[in-house]
Amino acid sequence: MKLVIGDKFNSSWSMRPWVLLKHFGIPFEETLIRLGQPDTKAKILEVSPSGKVPCLITDAGDSVWESLAIVETIAEAHPEHAMWPRDAALRARARSISAEMHAGFADLRENMPMEITTRAPGAGATPGAGATPGALANIARIEAIWAECLAKSGGPFLFGEFGIADAMFAPVVMRFNTYAPELSATSLDYAKRVTALPAVAAWIDGAREEAR
Amino acid sequence: MKLVIGDKFNSSWSMRPWVLLKHFGIPFEETLIRLGQPDTKAKILEVSPSGKVPCLITDAGDSVWESLAIVETIAEAHPEHAMWPRDAALRARARSISAEMHAGFADLRENMPMEITTRAPGAGATPGAGATPGALANIARIEAIWAECLAKSGGPFLFGEFGIADAMFAPVVMRFNTYAPELSATSLDYAKRVTALPAVAAWIDGAREEAR
Ligand SMILES: N[C@@H](CCC(=O)N[C@@H](CS)C(=O)NCC(=O)O)C(=O)O
Ligand SMILES: N[C@@H](CCC(=O)N[C@@H](CS)C(=O)NCC(=O)O)C(=O)O
Repeated sequence: MKLVIGDKFNSSWSMRPWVLLKHFGIPFEETLIRLGQPDTKAKILEVSPSGKVPCLITDAGDSVWESLAIVETIAEAHPEHAMWPRDAALRARARSISAEMHAGFADLRENMPMEITTRAPGAGATPGAGATPGALANIARIEAIWAECLAKSGGPFLFGEFGIADAMFAPVVMRFNTYAPELSATSLDYAKRVTALPAVAAWIDGAREEAR
Repeated sequence: MKLVIGDKFNSSWSMRPWVLLKHFGIPFEETLIRLGQPDTKAKILEVSPSGKVPCLITDAGDSVWESLAIVETIAEAHPEHAMWPRDAALRARARSISAEMHAGFADLRENMPMEITTRAPGAGATPGAGATPGALANIARIEAIWAECLAKSGGPFLFGEFGIADAMFAPVVMRFNTYAPELSATSLDYAKRVTALPAVAAWIDGAREEAR
């Protein structure tokens, strides 16, 4: 199995399935395509019909693209791991927030792009900088999602143990680390736990190495 | 089970799970919240924490939101129906294009909004009207997806029989009916088959009744 990703520094979508595979110890080959180069699009299109990364190449040689489709496919192939909650109602909720992340939060994504090793706290705290009203509204909704999930599950992750929903929000945590918007203690603690997770730390290390 | 939807005239996201449930003959109660009214947001927030429709209320009283999470939840609850292809590789592909639809095609959605009973062919054929370069690029990608799926499956729907992937693209078909962009014969034929599907026709009838 091969996962084609973009730069660890800023490919937020690539981070999701990568962290999931790493966390659950599922072996995979990694191919990194540098984004923003003259030949980026051509290289991506060789494997991913949407022209975007991430893209999973299965052992049979089939391409699976879109982070959410990739994680569903991985979860299905590995029923031995509770990547989604085992309880049907919780699973439906985990899918709701994961799909909300997949399709939404455009203001946050646009105004606080993931740049893992950058530290620009002002831009996250000052409205008018990265923290546009739209981005702040997105952040408020994300904090509400986290607070509700953590209260119900008791933590340490959104549905107890780390799973797909946490992987979907991991790039948001990276943004919070960079832009340092005002957050509740609950959100800050959760962000710390996600950042410290070995699989997430390994991705961050990769981003640091790219910068060298 | 209850499905909370927006107006049939223009709630493209609501159309997807509604058509899926209807097509497979799964009984459900329908609650329609008129969009764009002063109390729309408050009414939606009573059931859907994201503040958006569609929202599925399960028999246990749990809210499931986001069209893609709703259709995954329905598919899981009804393994007797092949809502996703039974073959794992085809299922991964169906999920890829469904997630691509869920997260993408922003230009098309913005510049050719779903308005089921409107007929504005010029706006779809003339660049500069609804057919911006971005919308046309989206249409080209959608045609490529359809062409490849139909060639592989042999039709009549994307993966043979009608399923989730077709439901995800049904609102695109409605847009094509309204704006009439230039399309391949393959796309036009597929659009005709989707439009004629009883479940889709029933949604269109509903939109017509709203207009009265
Ligand atoms: N919805 C897609 C988004 C993928 C995406 O936007 N990927 C970016 C990198 S993070 C990309 O491939 N950009 C390259 C390009 O557009 O040339 C997913 O979930 O995978
Ligand atoms: N990604 C969401 C999109 C839902 C959405 O945007 N719904 C619109 C109607 S089609 C809505 O609820 N708008 C009401 C509002 O924003 O007040 C999904 O798949 O369900």
